[in-house]
Amino acid sequence: MTYSLYYWPSIQGRGEFVRLALEDAGAGYVDVARKKNGVELMSKKLRQLHIFAPPFLCHGKVVVAQTALILHYLGPRLGLAPKAEAARLRLLQLQLTITDFLVEVHDTHHPIANSLYYEDQRAESLRRAKLFREQRIPKFLGYFETQATLPFSYVSLSLFQVMEGLDYAFPEAMRKTSYRNLRQLQERVKKRLAPYLASARRIPFNQSGLFRHYPELDG
Amino acid sequence: MTYSLYYWPSIQGRGEFVRLALEDAGAGYVDVARKKNGVELMSKKLRQLHIFAPPFLCHGKVVVAQTALILHYLGPRLGLAPKAEAARLRLLQLQLTITDFLVEVHDTHHPIANSLYYEDQRAESLRRAKLFREQRIPKFLGYFETQATLPFSYVSLSLFQVMEGLDYAFPEAMRKTSYRNLRQLQERVKKRLAPYLASARRIPFNQSGLFRHYPELDG
Repeated sequence: MTYSLYYWPSIQGRGEFVRLALEDAGAGYVDVARKKNGVELMSKKLRQLHIFAPPFLCHGKVVVAQTALILHYLGPRLGLAPKAEAARLRLLQLQLTITDFLVEVHDTHHPIANSLYYEDQRAESLRRAKLFREQRIPKFLGYFETQATLPFSYVSLSLFQVMEGLDYAFPEAMRKTSYRNLRQLQERVKKRLAPYLASARRIPFNQSGLFRHYPELDG
Repeated sequence: MTYSLYYWPSIQGRGEFVRLALEDAGAGYVDVARKKNGVELMSKKLRQLHIFAPPFLCHGKVVVAQTALILHYLGPRLGLAPKAEAARLRLLQLQLTITDFLVEVHDTHHPIANSLYYEDQRAESLRRAKLFREQRIPKFLGYFETQATLPFSYVSLSLFQVMEGLDYAFPEAMRKTSYRNLRQLQERVKKRLAPYLASARRIPFNQSGLFRHYPELDG
């Protein structure tokens, strides 16, 4: 049964964490909003299904929203998570910590409101990004570093995406760091996903996504 | 088997969402960090178990962190969630949307960094809180209003806590709103939990928690 993923068509954003799992497993899926009239269809489904926000996944009668929860659902089905409940909970817990980090990444360029342009909250972004680089990257990546050698799972793919995103958004700050396990994992996933990453299905990082490169926020 | 909850002893914070579920079910539990030397014990456990942050729950050999995931684990065990997978996923999805909202509530008084005092990010807080009141409260509560009539679960208890917290933090802004289903649910839970809410186990809202009352942020 084909998976239908609904997410914004022009950014990696949170949807990319789901795309990576589907692609790594070679699963049959439709990236609905990237098809003709797909965004309209997504908006309609969102209302019909009483879902708060994309991404969401439809699989037969099952509808799942929230990135981490979609991965929790897909994990055992795609061979990217064990089937035992305790191990699944442990992975979801890690994925939810990644979710927490992503909010902080996003808020480096949107510390005041999502509804305002970056340019209208630039002063606040400069302040927030400095402390993000100095305090939050070490806190989160220091933790993820201790988790990066766990058996391969959807979390491994998400940690790859976190590292790729940070390298794009904060190249200078990241150059000064050293996370051996995370870097090894990043290289391993880069090889595993090489065909996908080279394809048109991989939307390039850009200035509308979650990870954005504003040199002034990179210190 | 007794549940051991680990969370900061002097605030409601995220731990309160777990306390409400345990209290509503009349479950046997220890609020470990509120006992003598409890905070030291919590810090030690946090390191030993490689957990990122409180709250976390120990139950026999099971260890669960992340508020929403703790509730997902407890739900069927406390009679506060169905046992069927699809229904459990739906509840967790809602709880994760509450989690998203709580970050935004917190960031009204900490838009720049958790490591700074409110007083050192007051100007940014004023800006963020205004848009939070005008845009984010209606967006999230408008959604939760449509979900407030679902069968009683741990999500109902969490929605009660969200309403209580917003009433404490933003009394003026909340007075102008009208969410009939959420208000009915709030009253229902207030009655259900009356003994707990009147007890010393219920930590009062205060200016160190997630929900804080700064009149200037209330418009």
